[in-house]
Amino acid sequence: MTQVYNFSAGPAMMPTAVLEKAQTELLNWQNQHTSVMEVSHRGKLFMEMIAECEQDFRKLYNIPENYKILFLQGGARGQFAAIPMNLIGEKGKALYLTSGHWSATAAKEARNFCEIDEINILEQGDELKVGSLDFSEIAEQYDYVHYCPNETISGVEIFNEPKVGNAVLVADMSSNILSRAIDISQFGLIYAGAQKNLGPAGITLVIVREDLIGKARKATPSIWNYETQANNDSMINTPPTFAWYLCSLVFKHLLELGGLAEIEKRNQAKAELLYRYLDNSNFYRNTVAKANRSLMNVTFTTGNDELNAKFVAEATASGLQALKGHKVLGGMRASIYNAMPIEGVQALIAFMQKFEAENK
Amino acid sequence: MTQVYNFSAGPAMMPTAVLEKAQTELLNWQNQHTSVMEVSHRGKLFMEMIAECEQDFRKLYNIPENYKILFLQGGARGQFAAIPMNLIGEKGKALYLTSGHWSATAAKEARNFCEIDEINILEQGDELKVGSLDFSEIAEQYDYVHYCPNETISGVEIFNEPKVGNAVLVADMSSNILSRAIDISQFGLIYAGAQKNLGPAGITLVIVREDLIGKARKATPSIWNYETQANNDSMINTPPTFAWYLCSLVFKHLLELGGLAEIEKRNQAKAELLYRYLDNSNFYRNTVAKANRSLMNVTFTTGNDELNAKFVAEATASGLQALKGHKVLGGMRASIYNAMPIEGVQALIAFMQKFEAENK
Repeated sequence: MTQVYNFSAGPAMMPTAVLEKAQTELLNWQNQHTSVMEVSHRGKLFMEMIAECEQDFRKLYNIPENYKILFLQGGARGQFAAIPMNLIGEKGKALYLTSGHWSATAAKEARNFCEIDEINILEQGDELKVGSLDFSEIAEQYDYVHYCPNETISGVEIFNEPKVGNAVLVADMSSNILSRAIDISQFGLIYAGAQKNLGPAGITLVIVREDLIGKARKATPSIWNYETQANNDSMINTPPTFAWYLCSLVFKHLLELGGLAEIEKRNQAKAELLYRYLDNSNFYRNTVAKANRSLMNVTFTTGNDELNAKFVAEATASGLQALKGHKVLGGMRASIYNAMPIEGVQALIAFMQKFEAENK
Repeated sequence: MTQVYNFSAGPAMMPTAVLEKAQTELLNWQNQHTSVMEVSHRGKLFMEMIAECEQDFRKLYNIPENYKILFLQGGARGQFAAIPMNLIGEKGKALYLTSGHWSATAAKEARNFCEIDEINILEQGDELKVGSLDFSEIAEQYDYVHYCPNETISGVEIFNEPKVGNAVLVADMSSNILSRAIDISQFGLIYAGAQKNLGPAGITLVIVREDLIGKARKATPSIWNYETQANNDSMINTPPTFAWYLCSLVFKHLLELGGLAEIEKRNQAKAELLYRYLDNSNFYRNTVAKANRSLMNVTFTTGNDELNAKFVAEATASGLQALKGHKVLGGMRASIYNAMPIEGVQALIAFMQKFEAENK
């Protein structure tokens, strides 16, 4: 088969081993002579699978016992609404730290449900750079402080959590979940759409500290009420069973590879290779400050829209897929999530060298 | 392979031909050397696939042009909340007709979002029987009238739409969508979770008349705002792409079989066979009035809990899976959705005869 590398920002590449296993047992799961997508979510085998799935996920992040893990529907954008519905309490407002498209979109959606204050944490200047993250003086006025540790579109990542004193820190980790070890106890709530590092699009993971559960307003849809879902094993409605199954395979796969310590090492090696190449190039440039360069989404441009379009077209023809940048930013973007092997990054760099030689 | 028939109420059996196609192309969709679940939902090939998917669905039901079709997340239970959020307008209240567990659950959820009136449409008596459905005198006081044409748990189906004058009729067709031809123009809105007749759990279909779009309250999550989703090809957030793809295969499969006229004929033949057997048996009984016997979910009992449990255990051992009735009702339930071949019903009846002979 043609060697292809898929740099899609999401839905993104899945581990080949996972897809192969899913393919093998697609019509005969657990020797039931039926597909995993055809069995009841309340059946014994499915319930055992999701229990193991949760254990594996807890193991990966070493999640403290006082956190619940929910598998929901509606994507991160669903949580943009669900979070204020569930977490706004006596303080009556939330603080949103914005560093790009997704954190700003989360803030915009939240305004439909509560009062919010918004602070742009990007510094002014040519580089994309996140400024001071010490909000400990003001954070406790708010029911929670929301931020997005990895902005997928611009490739801006925040490696140290904002300081919020005793306030509740909420993070949209859609595009960097499971990419490196973090201390879960720093967070009140973490959420992520699955389609980058967890599994296929259509399932949403929420990690929530128990004391934050039970505060939902009356007008909260039951499928997003954290208390309802926590009390019902995330099954107040029929869950996206096949997507959940694929997540369970991904978690096992990451544990087999050595867990997050190993994954982080690999992700750093891939990103370093690509950024080092970009730094040494006069042809391509990346405009993110070194301290905030995403390990997951590497953006670059030739500075010329026509040349960028030519790059994307020729890369696609060479088997390097989905390198076109997001429409709001233009240029190129290489999403190198967990499933991207270092060989994909090497192939991309080889192509970039060739393209530079032919077009400079 | 062992011949197995899966009578699960949902997630339910899928057409074998669909699963086999999905299996074949799971790692190489459209000769892209990548899985359909790994490609961008905004890519050309994926957009072409969903356009064709919509056309196929429109063809199956002959859907008038003034209806939009949305593919969303959150299941029918998500829509229990989304419907009042989107449809409650100047009248300020809705009428819910209840005929069992799911219509009552929809009413309960709606109360969190608006004022509702509720009418139990089951007649009193030993049989489960739906009474008069003429609400044309009162319906126009309400922004909409909601009902559930097939109650999955009890197996009660409503074959003629309630009369509501010029009011908006809303139907939860989760468990009988695409099972028979209907006149879509009788409805303001139809919705369905996918996991019975459409595809895998995790995608939700909404058919909504255009004039009902654009009335959502401010506090409506954007992923459920019909106007937002209609204006964005159901892609205001990343859609559940793999589930959508499977729906597209199911629609093509149904068209190849001859469309809904043929499907309806098959479903009637399957249901008639099973009900006729039940009517002639003194050992098993079904308590639904003939006029309301579901074509999709056939409930029956021996009248003895221990014997019912024995039936389910022995049936499972014989390859007749998931026949246990829903916990709120007990007994047995055979869900015979579109994907169940008549051979499955024949095998079930053969087993029932044997079990009766051995246990009466």
